[in-house]
This record gives sequence, C-alpha cells and structure tokens, in this order.
Amino acid sequence: MTDHGGYTCLTFLTDYGTQDGFVAACRAQMLRHAPGLPVIDITHDIPPGDVRRGATVLADTVPEFPAAVHIGVVDPGVGTARRSVALAAGGHVLVGPDNGLLVWAAEALGGIDTAVELTNESLWRHPVSRTFHGRDIYAPVGARIAAGLPLSEAGQALDPAVLVRLSAPLRDVSGGVARGEVHAIDRFGNCQLSLHPEDLRSVVAAPGLPDRVAVRLPDGSHTVAVAATFGAVPLGEPVLLTDSAGLLALAVNGGSAAQRFGLGVGAPVVLSRTSSEPMKE
Amino acid sequence: MTDHGGYTCLTFLTDYGTQDGFVAACRAQMLRHAPGLPVIDITHDIPPGDVRRGATVLADTVPEFPAAVHIGVVDPGVGTARRSVALAAGGHVLVGPDNGLLVWAAEALGGIDTAVELTNESLWRHPVSRTFHGRDIYAPVGARIAAGLPLSEAGQALDPAVLVRLSAPLRDVSGGVARGEVHAIDRFGNCQLSLHPEDLRSVVAAPGLPDRVAVRLPDGSHTVAVAATFGAVPLGEPVLLTDSAGLLALAVNGGSAAQRFGLGVGAPVVLSRTSSEPMKE
Amino acid sequence: MTDHGGYTCLTFLTDYGTQDGFVAACRAQMLRHAPGLPVIDITHDIPPGDVRRGATVLADTVPEFPAAVHIGVVDPGVGTARRSVALAAGGHVLVGPDNGLLVWAAEALGGIDTAVELTNESLWRHPVSRTFHGRDIYAPVGARIAAGLPLSEAGQALDPAVLVRLSAPLRDVSGGVARGEVHAIDRFGNCQLSLHPEDLRSVVAAPGLPDRVAVRLPDGSHTVAVAATFGAVPLGEPVLLTDSAGLLALAVNGGSAAQRFGLGVGAPVVLSRTSSEPMKE
Repeated sequence: MTDHGGYTCLTFLTDYGTQDGFVAACRAQMLRHAPGLPVIDITHDIPPGDVRRGATVLADTVPEFPAAVHIGVVDPGVGTARRSVALAAGGHVLVGPDNGLLVWAAEALGGIDTAVELTNESLWRHPVSRTFHGRDIYAPVGARIAAGLPLSEAGQALDPAVLVRLSAPLRDVSGGVARGEVHAIDRFGNCQLSLHPEDLRSVVAAPGLPDRVAVRLPDGSHTVAVAATFGAVPLGEPVLLTDSAGLLALAVNGGSAAQRFGLGVGAPVVLSRTSSEPMKE
Repeated sequence: MTDHGGYTCLTFLTDYGTQDGFVAACRAQMLRHAPGLPVIDITHDIPPGDVRRGATVLADTVPEFPAAVHIGVVDPGVGTARRSVALAAGGHVLVGPDNGLLVWAAEALGGIDTAVELTNESLWRHPVSRTFHGRDIYAPVGARIAAGLPLSEAGQALDPAVLVRLSAPLRDVSGGVARGEVHAIDRFGNCQLSLHPEDLRSVVAAPGLPDRVAVRLPDGSHTVAVAATFGAVPLGEPVLLTDSAGLLALAVNGGSAAQRFGLGVGAPVVLSRTSSEPMKE
Repeated sequence: MTDHGGYTCLTFLTDYGTQDGFVAACRAQMLRHAPGLPVIDITHDIPPGDVRRGATVLADTVPEFPAAVHIGVVDPGVGTARRSVALAAGGHVLVGPDNGLLVWAAEALGGIDTAVELTNESLWRHPVSRTFHGRDIYAPVGARIAAGLPLSEAGQALDPAVLVRLSAPLRDVSGGVARGEVHAIDRFGNCQLSLHPEDLRSVVAAPGLPDRVAVRLPDGSHTVAVAATFGAVPLGEPVLLTDSAGLLALAVNGGSAAQRFGLGVGAPVVLSRTSSEPMKE
C-alpha cells in the first residue's frame, strides 16, 4: 500500500487541545520526515496530564488500524528524567514518554516485542526545547520510523520489564460477584467498566448473559437490563451492554449514565445476580 | 483526479465528539478500504442524537464538494431495526442511517437518483458491534463505494419513497408576512432562518430587498436593517442578511444574535414590512 | 517533494470553530484547486473575531513548516472595504484579510518580501458571498498559489508599508526592570510573556539566567524560580521558563498559572532582580 517501511499511517494522540498551534507544530515534523504518509488524529482532548485516560483511549483505538506508527503524548513529566521510548507490538510501533501511556496499547496489540529508549539525538528536531518533546522528539522520531527507519537506530534496546506501568483497573470476580470500576466515560455519558462479558457469565454461572443484573454503585443498588443495544430498553432506562471495545458498559438509552448515576472514572461497580425472590420488608 | 470510482474524497460528519477514539476507529476502516483517498471532516460536534442539526449541516456543506462520498452518522437508534442506506444524488453518494439525516443533503445535491439498503454484510467490519455502526458498517461500506464498488453491490434497491424524512422547517409566505423559524445557529450566534431572500421580496412586493424589515421574535418586534454584510450596520446592531448558504439570517455586527434576542433553534420568526407611518399612541 | 509550486502543504487557521460546516466548505475549495496537497489545520478555535490571538498562534506556528501556503481567516470585517492580501515571506505565502492577522507571522518567517492585494476575481469561487470570504476568496486563491499560480497573478502589487498592523505587545527593558504583558495563554494555563530570555539577562546584568526572579503581577509580587522545565519545581509551584516558541513563560508545575494568578491576555508583568538583602520592617 506504501513504501513507508510497511506502515499505512501515523496516528496521533495528545493532551494538547486544539486551541493552540501545538498539534500543527508536530504535524510539521511529520510532514518533513514522512511526507506523503497519512496522519490520523485519535484525539487531542485528553484532559491535561491524564495519562490513564490517554492510555485507555489509545488501547481502545490502535487495534483498529492496519500496521501503523502511533505517537502518543500525555507527558506531565516533560523535560525531567523520564525516558522516551518506542515499543514494537504486533507489527505496530508506539512512540512516546515512558510513563505508562503506551503499555496498555502495546498489550492490546498483542504485547511488546521490543522496546527502545530514544537516545539517538541526531533524529530529533534541534534545538530541543525542554517543554515540547512532542514536537522535538516524538513527532520526528515517530515519522522517521514510519518512513522506514529501523527501530534499532532510534536508540538503545530496553528491557520491557523496566517500563513504567499504570496500575491495572480493578477486576475481581469472586464470591458470586464481579467487582470493577468505571474505566472510561465517553461523550454520550456511557460508562465503560473494567469488566468483561465473561465476568458477568461467571457471576451468573451460565454460558449466556442474563436478562437482568444487580448493579451496585456509589448511590445504591439498581436492577439493570442486560441487552445488546441502547434501544432495547425504553428511552431514559439504563442498560448494561457490551461496548464496541468488547467491555461491559453501563448506558442509558437516549441519556447519560454518568449523569444519571453521578459516576466518574474510577467509581466502584459491583455486579451480582438479581434475586429471584421478591424482596421482603 | 483519482481512480477511486471517480470520487474526489470522503467526507465525514458525526455526533461522536473528538474526546474519544470513535472518529479514528472509523478512519481506520476508511484507510483500509480507500487508501490514498482524502478524508475531510465536516464536523463531529453535532449535539448527541440531534438528527435535525446533523441534517442541516450536511445539507449546507455537501454541495460545496466535487463528486464525493459523504458518510453521516447521527444515529440514536443504532442497533435497532432502523435501516442503513446509501443514496446516490447528483453524482455524489450519501451513506448512513435511514432516520432523515441524509435526505436534505440529497435534495441539496439535486434529489435522490437511487437508494440502496445496506444489506451486503460481506462488506462490513466483523464482528459487527450493536452500538458502533459508524465503524462497522458506514465507514467500510462508504469507503468501498468511494474506491469504486458499484452502489448496487452494497445491498438491495430501495424505493426512495419509503425513506424516513424529517418534517420540513416552517416556511409560509401569506397575508403580507413571512413566517419561519430559526433553522440553525452557528458559532458566532448568527441565526439562519428557514426563509429565503425571495420570501422577503414577496413580503415587500418588490424586485429588490428593502432597507429595513419588521422582525417579530418571541421577545417582541424589532425593526432591523437589511444589508449584505455584518459591517454595514454599527457594531452591536442587528442586521438581516443573506448568508453563505443562501438563506436569510439574523445577525448582530460583532456580536451574537442568538444571545441578544434569546433565540434557540426552532424559535418562530415573522418578517413583515416596516410601517412608513409613525406609530400612534 | 511535490510539484505543487514547491509548497509542501497548505495550513489553515480560522475562528470558525468546528461545530458548523464552515471549515469543510473551505476544504472543498482547497481540494478543487490543490488536489493531492496535504492540508494541515493549525486551529479553528481562535475566539470569534480575536485577530490578536490569531496573529499570535499563526506567528508561533508557521516557522515550524517547510515552505507552505498558510491561509488565515479571523475576519470580523468580512465584506467591508478591508483588503484581502497575500504576503510572500521567507519562501512561504500567507493569505487572508489585511487586518493585522498575517503580519507577525510574516515577520517570524523573516519579513515580507512582496505583498499583493487579491483583486483577480477570476480566481474566486462564484457567486462570492459577502459573509464567507474564507470559502470564496482565501481558500481558492491560497490553494491555487500552493498549486503553482504565481503570486503576481493573484492581484496587484501592494506596498507592504500600507498593510494594517497590530500594536506590538509591551516590551520595555529599562531602569533595571523588564516590563511586558501576558501575550498568550495556552490550554495548560501557561502564560507566554512578551519578554525574551535576553530581557531577563539584561535585568540581572549577567550572561546566564538567574535562579529566581521577582515577578510583579496585578495581584502582587512573587519570587519565582527560573528553570528549564515544569518539573524542576515541586508540584503546584510557579516557574519562569523559556517556552517552545523561545519566549519567557510563567507556568505552574502540574497546574495553571493563569488560574493561580488570575491572569488574562494583556495583563501587565514586571520582572526584576530578587533582593539579596532580607526585607526590613
């Protein structure tokens, strides 16, 4: 499809927002070093410095792409001693700071094959600022890799075991309940959980999903329909479904589950079987 | 200009917002099935589920393009029984849900030539989620059409008469007045009306536009200058002009007409001649 | 890299926002007249009509690019008698209204080489609206120039001295203090000053930067560390650093300097030496 080292595109995720010229300054570097290669924005609206949120969106999105180089920059430690890295995973390459941002995405791509610390300064934009490594390191190095530069030339091999990792989101299935948390909230207020459909099947000890589930949230317990679509329940009613990333999600048909139940990222969620006995006073 | 079935680009309009990875996931499908073809975002900031707003922006924008495939996804009924369709109109193709989103755009392109229900599942991304048909159906099918797939292979022919249509915005010229509504409000607070310059000419029974017009709004009646530009009236003053889509619009030079007059989409607007007689007590 | 008149891309900056179809309508013109040329958005989130902000972002960003045509539209006077211009500077071309938007960028590119008033109407989109010159004049003319049209064919030569210019931001170094203002505030709340590192070196009368500086702001005087990175000071602490555009900036590690000190664009800032003597009552 292209002679750019076999990569079909660059993708780009940051917390730079879109009101300044930061994203365009990085795009200028990509244009210099990988001219002709498409660049696809994942998002630049990661909340400033929110590495967990960046890691979540990146991991949800990169598996959709054919072989690509993904540049991610959510980097509150820019200019300090934190490493800059490139990770090869499943035919893709991830480029960014070593603060946990890239590792979940690498795992979603099949796991880290090789890791490199970006130490070859001759590939960088000069002068290198201390506050804008997206423009000065990640964009030029990522673009050069996308254009065919072997990963090994970007720097020194690194043992993946030393990479900074984020704590895994809560996911515990035991004692007949599944304990998790709100992992991400999308624009519509849908709350993606850290739980998988198989966790719910374990809870109900059945090969299929149940019709209803008891959902304990900070504001109390709710009986929620389990269905495949928002529209399977009446407008304004909650529903637990499997989202497009394959995770369980709590939603409200035509509304926002986050608003309805007052949920933020990290809020605890416990799923259990609904009682088949009527409640007694 | 391209060998992609004669289409110059893909355009893309959704209510997905830009804070998640949804748009990029769709772009990955377009990259797979129409590599090398430009993709131009119209907007992803349609308010969630607001099909009327999506239809308005799409209809205002698609006629600007040379022959293209336009993918529109504002789809509160995703995963329910609503149809998915592709509409050929004026050398363009529109792809999306059958909920009224696409029809005004097709009419703006000269009217529907042929309609197809998207039933050929072999063209879709698999597994097909129940909540993300933008990624799983509209993006891959739209991209394949843009790359040269004949529309007839995307599914079964459909009688355009059975397509879901939105109610037309109010436009009534009779009794010496033009009754309409606020059809759209842009970023600047300019209020596009559902009325055309010819409606105003009918009201004043003259071949040209008058200098001033009486505008009845929910907050009362106003005498407003009719002019060609914002700057034709003093800063802070209202003006009725013909906007870039060819419709009448109520604006305020250097300000927001929506704020000034407390207007939202759908607000009733009545235009009539200004009295040449002074008002008497 | 391309046969498009030697230009590597078009860039595009406006105050159109991204909720309407305005940007896409301009992109359609670029697609028509410079097919195959990349278009890179700088930003469309300039506050409506804020020419100073547009000029600042444009000047910060365009020097990052290889030779390109930059289209800028922040144009509160659209449709009035203000000129439309194209400026050649340092191998680049800037296209937009003559209201000061483009001049700082031209200076950042090395200064205006030639200026042309866009008077050749045969290059415009017709009919030309009175309210949307981005679509009707700047996009088609900019794209045609990027595709190889000689600047001289876009209109009549113009003496650069007659161009509208914005007042320069305050920058005065005298009496042992440097007086400037907040020139721009980015998404993170970092406050870019109108002062350069050399101004601070003048104040301390030393070849290097001092460790600390006295910063007088509207809310009072502060002693602030001078460092190279956000992370050089503890979380929540202010720091004065040289930003990625080469200007001094007041920041807060992990926070927003704008919020912390209640600063807006234009706020006065005075830098002076910290007293090495303890203050006496």
